[in-house]
Amino acid sequence: MTQRIFNFSPGPAVQPEPVLQEARENLLSLGNTGIGVLEHSHRGKAFSAVLAQTEADCRALAGIPDNYRVLFLQGGASTQFFQVPMNFLTKGDTADYLVTGAWSEKAVEQARRYGNVHIACNSKDRNHSYIPATASYSDRPKYVHFTSNNTIFGTQFKVDPKPPGDAFLVCDASSDIYSRPIDVAKYGIIYAGSQKNLGPAGVTLVIIRDDLVKSAALDIPDMLQYRFHAENDSCYNTPPTFVIYCMGLVFKWLRQQGGLKAIAEHNEAKAGKLYSYLDQSKMFRGTADRDSRSLMNVTFVTGNETLDKRFIAFAEQRGLDGLKGHRSVGGMRASIYNAFPAAGVDALVAAMQEFERSQG
Amino acid sequence: MTQRIFNFSPGPAVQPEPVLQEARENLLSLGNTGIGVLEHSHRGKAFSAVLAQTEADCRALAGIPDNYRVLFLQGGASTQFFQVPMNFLTKGDTADYLVTGAWSEKAVEQARRYGNVHIACNSKDRNHSYIPATASYSDRPKYVHFTSNNTIFGTQFKVDPKPPGDAFLVCDASSDIYSRPIDVAKYGIIYAGSQKNLGPAGVTLVIIRDDLVKSAALDIPDMLQYRFHAENDSCYNTPPTFVIYCMGLVFKWLRQQGGLKAIAEHNEAKAGKLYSYLDQSKMFRGTADRDSRSLMNVTFVTGNETLDKRFIAFAEQRGLDGLKGHRSVGGMRASIYNAFPAAGVDALVAAMQEFERSQG
Repeated sequence: MTQRIFNFSPGPAVQPEPVLQEARENLLSLGNTGIGVLEHSHRGKAFSAVLAQTEADCRALAGIPDNYRVLFLQGGASTQFFQVPMNFLTKGDTADYLVTGAWSEKAVEQARRYGNVHIACNSKDRNHSYIPATASYSDRPKYVHFTSNNTIFGTQFKVDPKPPGDAFLVCDASSDIYSRPIDVAKYGIIYAGSQKNLGPAGVTLVIIRDDLVKSAALDIPDMLQYRFHAENDSCYNTPPTFVIYCMGLVFKWLRQQGGLKAIAEHNEAKAGKLYSYLDQSKMFRGTADRDSRSLMNVTFVTGNETLDKRFIAFAEQRGLDGLKGHRSVGGMRASIYNAFPAAGVDALVAAMQEFERSQG
Repeated sequence: MTQRIFNFSPGPAVQPEPVLQEARENLLSLGNTGIGVLEHSHRGKAFSAVLAQTEADCRALAGIPDNYRVLFLQGGASTQFFQVPMNFLTKGDTADYLVTGAWSEKAVEQARRYGNVHIACNSKDRNHSYIPATASYSDRPKYVHFTSNNTIFGTQFKVDPKPPGDAFLVCDASSDIYSRPIDVAKYGIIYAGSQKNLGPAGVTLVIIRDDLVKSAALDIPDMLQYRFHAENDSCYNTPPTFVIYCMGLVFKWLRQQGGLKAIAEHNEAKAGKLYSYLDQSKMFRGTADRDSRSLMNVTFVTGNETLDKRFIAFAEQRGLDGLKGHRSVGGMRASIYNAFPAAGVDALVAAMQEFERSQG
């Protein structure tokens, strides 16, 4: 088999090798069923067991309280951008949005169709290179929405926003979900696309408080009502069974790693190595403010576009793939989600050192 | 490896074994990239090539004209149930629906939120066991919607409806797409969930005429506007890359089988064997009218629920899985999509013969 290289892709992203191995073994027959994992009916015993175990591990990892529903939906975070306001905002209502990057900007655009949007803070003045220290909320927001980690700009909330009054907190956690312990009880809704920390692309994990499921809008399409998905255990229509199966394997792997506290320590160590190197480098520098740095997406530049390109090519030759930064920031981005191996970070630091020396 | 059994599941359903084998070989590294197929960025070269080839084969198989777009969306046919009227119906408009089963009924329910629905025909009077010979259209419907094959009731249109005036034809082809040649130019929109004839669950194939993409509603969420998906080659947001990859493998396999004409002959032969047996059996009988019989889902009963259950258990012991009929029809259902092997049909007929004798 071809040797695996280090994949710094921002998503779809590298998966734990044991997850891929187990999926591989079950592709033509799930266990001894004689039917491949992606060929099982979503209403059959075999897949029902997969779904139940996936939810159980998802709950166990974060200690999700009983009054929260765990839903496996489709359409990505981009669908939640409109599904949340469609369900909870009506004309006259206001929702507060913390704008810290491209994804929260997109979420704002979609919410404006349903009610008033109040921008509680905005980091656009410095190209979203920081998380604002404070937010200024409106009088009575229905909810407060934020993006916990900004894949493109390499920033991450270290402390959760505190919504005023009765407002519930909505978090797009697509790029850092389950990378650290999470106190679910503080949130009304947490959603995340699967393709970064949770598995292949194609499932959206939605953790939603039961009273919100019940109180949400009724005059919208059935498929966009959380209640139908909740009432039918995510089998209101055919769910993306294989992707859910892989997500379950990722949860199992996370538990084997010691859970969220343990994985957070791994992530801190990995990102710590990279940032330490960047802070002492004469050629490379991080683009995000120190107190806002993401442990998932490490963005950095040389300050010279030609040099950036040369480094990316230099790294590719060494089996370090996907380092090109997003055009909004330029330079490089190392996406080092849960499944990204520490050895890959070491290899990147070594490549940066070598490149820096070679240009000296 | 465990021996594979005959899987009559209505969907997710059996896949061609070469498809599963190839997916298996590429799970830890797509070709020699060193990155597993589900770990590749949707914006990278490797997946872009997969996507382009998948679309090319999809077009080649059905001879899709250049003025049609091929989109790979999420949310299943259930999402198209509301997305089509949301895009094309406004208050005052009428759309005509041919009601021939549970799925067209669901489509009607969702459309009612957006405009008037005229029921052009309805087979409910005889539990959807037939396709009405005629339809009575409204004066100026915006479009005419029908379900080409009814998974639950085992019926299938043999001739497409002919919409009146300027109305365009919308087809939910989820359970018989690419099971026979299709003249795309007759349709405005064809949509299909992937999990029956096209691959694993998690992608919706939408074939839509270009002028409809352009003329659709603008005042709806971005994710529900076909234009954004068309403009971004189905990468407006992260698509379900692995499921699209598998769909591409299914298209390749279909071409290797000789294309849609050849697969239609296979399907006719498979279903023919089953219906011939049913027509001469003293114990089993088909539930659908002869001229409306589906080549994909063969529904049959003994007329005695206890006997039905005994037969299902009898068949399971012989490695024939998933034969239990839907509760709306009862009895048995043999779903024999493109990838279902002829040997499995032979095994089912043999099991029915043996059971019939054993009860004699």
